[in-house]
Amino acid sequence: MIHKETPSIRTRPWLTGDVGYREHVTSLDVDAVGYLVESAGVFSESEKKLAVELVKERLEKGIESGYLFLFGETAGGLLGYACFGHIPCTADSYDLYWIVVSDACKGSGLAERLLEKTEGIISAGGGGKVYVETSMRKEYARSRRFYSKNGYRMEAVLEDFYAPDDHKAIFVKKIGQR
Amino acid sequence: MIHKETPSIRTRPWLTGDVGYREHVTSLDVDAVGYLVESAGVFSESEKKLAVELVKERLEKGIESGYLFLFGETAGGLLGYACFGHIPCTADSYDLYWIVVSDACKGSGLAERLLEKTEGIISAGGGGKVYVETSMRKEYARSRRFYSKNGYRMEAVLEDFYAPDDHKAIFVKKIGQR
Repeated sequence: MIHKETPSIRTRPWLTGDVGYREHVTSLDVDAVGYLVESAGVFSESEKKLAVELVKERLEKGIESGYLFLFGETAGGLLGYACFGHIPCTADSYDLYWIVVSDACKGSGLAERLLEKTEGIISAGGGGKVYVETSMRKEYARSRRFYSKNGYRMEAVLEDFYAPDDHKAIFVKKIGQR
Repeated sequence: MIHKETPSIRTRPWLTGDVGYREHVTSLDVDAVGYLVESAGVFSESEKKLAVELVKERLEKGIESGYLFLFGETAGGLLGYACFGHIPCTADSYDLYWIVVSDACKGSGLAERLLEKTEGIISAGGGGKVYVETSMRKEYARSRRFYSKNGYRMEAVLEDFYAPDDHKAIFVKKIGQR
């Protein structure tokens, strides 16, 4: 028997129901995102706080906030989401600020679908490049593999960016016509 | 006779008066910053808009906005300013978002003094590294020289970041005890 730490969708039949995707943000998403990043178990206090702040900022300022969202959910609740936005003062570069899926959805393909749909939204909005940043620490090896597997190229590493010996990697992917 | 496009402080005696420095932000700074970036003549529309937005954001949210300011002024008005802040989710990294001096103050040493004082504020607040980003276009050669001369090292270049053939350079300087 093969033990998998993160059960795939096959072992969690309640995950096989239709996942709905939604760009609209409601006040309920503040708590839903807070719960999701809390339960993911990998984020620091400041990261969790920031994730929730971005939802609030979007609710307060609307599209003007610069934060776009894509939520993946079932009737049972939020399963994952992506937060992204156009980078001010660039022609067509976008930042992917967050992509998070619930612990139970890891390995289910939901993250890939969220990423693919996010790139579609960016491309439809005129975006040509997507940037994403992550840590070079070993705890983030899975994230780095995820981006590499999905067409992102590590373009730069900023040493000791997050903290001493915690470097930042900047990944980029060209999308659309460019 | 030597013609200088940007008169130094020697040729502008009204600039030799004492420059005062101030971190406090007031509602008058919205227009003052708008006028300064407009008159600088080097910023795009979106850059000018963003510069003013950061002042407004600071006024609305206070220190929580994450935007710190240092203004250099005389009784006659604002001569230049720096906008900077701690980078969320980092131990002690700071971004220097803007450093702008009026056209008349170019070559006067005001930019160097603003930078030095900004680094002092960051260091006193526990900051260990300062990041600054600028374009690799030839119009920004002066900016890149300014940072290099003041101890900043170009750590990475992101190709076509701002637009096709308009790369972003990321400079960094270690300050304080690190």
